[in-house]
Amino acid sequence: MYKVLGTSHSGNSYKVKLLLSQLQIPHTWQETDILQGATRTPEFLAMNPNGKVPLLQVGPGRYLPESNAILCYLADGSPLWPADRWGRADTLRWMFFEQYSHEPYIAVARFIMKFLPPDHSRRAEVPGLYDRGYKALGVMEQRLSAHPYFVGDAYSIADIALFAYTHVAADGGFALERYPAVTAWIERVAAQPRFIPLETH
Amino acid sequence: MYKVLGTSHSGNSYKVKLLLSQLQIPHTWQETDILQGATRTPEFLAMNPNGKVPLLQVGPGRYLPESNAILCYLADGSPLWPADRWGRADTLRWMFFEQYSHEPYIAVARFIMKFLPPDHSRRAEVPGLYDRGYKALGVMEQRLSAHPYFVGDAYSIADIALFAYTHVAADGGFALERYPAVTAWIERVAAQPRFIPLETH
Repeated sequence: MYKVLGTSHSGNSYKVKLLLSQLQIPHTWQETDILQGATRTPEFLAMNPNGKVPLLQVGPGRYLPESNAILCYLADGSPLWPADRWGRADTLRWMFFEQYSHEPYIAVARFIMKFLPPDHSRRAEVPGLYDRGYKALGVMEQRLSAHPYFVGDAYSIADIALFAYTHVAADGGFALERYPAVTAWIERVAAQPRFIPLETH
Repeated sequence: MYKVLGTSHSGNSYKVKLLLSQLQIPHTWQETDILQGATRTPEFLAMNPNGKVPLLQVGPGRYLPESNAILCYLADGSPLWPADRWGRADTLRWMFFEQYSHEPYIAVARFIMKFLPPDHSRRAEVPGLYDRGYKALGVMEQRLSAHPYFVGDAYSIADIALFAYTHVAADGGFALERYPAVTAWIERVAAQPRFIPLETH
């Protein structure tokens, strides 16, 4: 059985939890508190030298880090990852977009605003994160104005990857209501079978 | 025939150029000067709303952005992208690592130090980029101390993705000589058949 090491209030970990639910894949979940340094212990670094969750244990001594690589692995053979060459490349295009042009702004703003104290020095970074975060939302809005989902016209792991931090972007101060196509897509994703919400305690 | 829009001195564009050479895939190359705003024109944004190179034209009106998604697409069916489920996931793991934990530090330091004037205000960012850039090099060193390449024991597109900016990390001020396994790997990659160097004019 798969074991996931993850932090339930983290969007990157939530991607994996949502996919496991939607594909009804049996697994165990080991809650790993990044704020308490649980990804910095020698034991954790032996499993993932990069010190990040989520981390999927595929077998004895075999670990897969990187949330989007985990999505690809778990969705293999399911309709959520297209099997054809173009569909796979187009899915990866949006997943790399998410990690490079979206998460570092939208997720980081959320982390600073939601999980650090109001007087923390990192608050100074937030205004600078808005420019590029809004740019990413603009790219998404353009796509979703003409299509219901990111790849072809079907729900896929690209939607899961982008949903994770987009639907809680307001936590970081982003005004999602400016993006009606993104907002409608959030509702479509949340209406998928076996959808589960992000834990926001 | 494929057409690539790319910037020859950019590591992300070079990944595509190197793979096309190694797989001997016929293509045309349209040099696109990011420093002159060529990725910000309405014509370019119609092809890639995210305004970035490299961009692969796969067919009429069909464009694929994101360097690592392009590598996956072009390497499909070749030995450079493993066909088995674990091999693919493990390759993607390193490619997502590259875009999230490596490129934003090592490539950005190079950009600031090599392409901006010495008195540019962004020089102030560089010391902050070293911590996380060196952390990425440490993760690579650990892998390469025990294996010749990143995935299994064979050269793959994960090596191409990580080679692009690692081998010119000194341009940004990184001391690569502290990482003997990385340095030896750079030499192994540069000795691959049909290797071509990054243009560093």
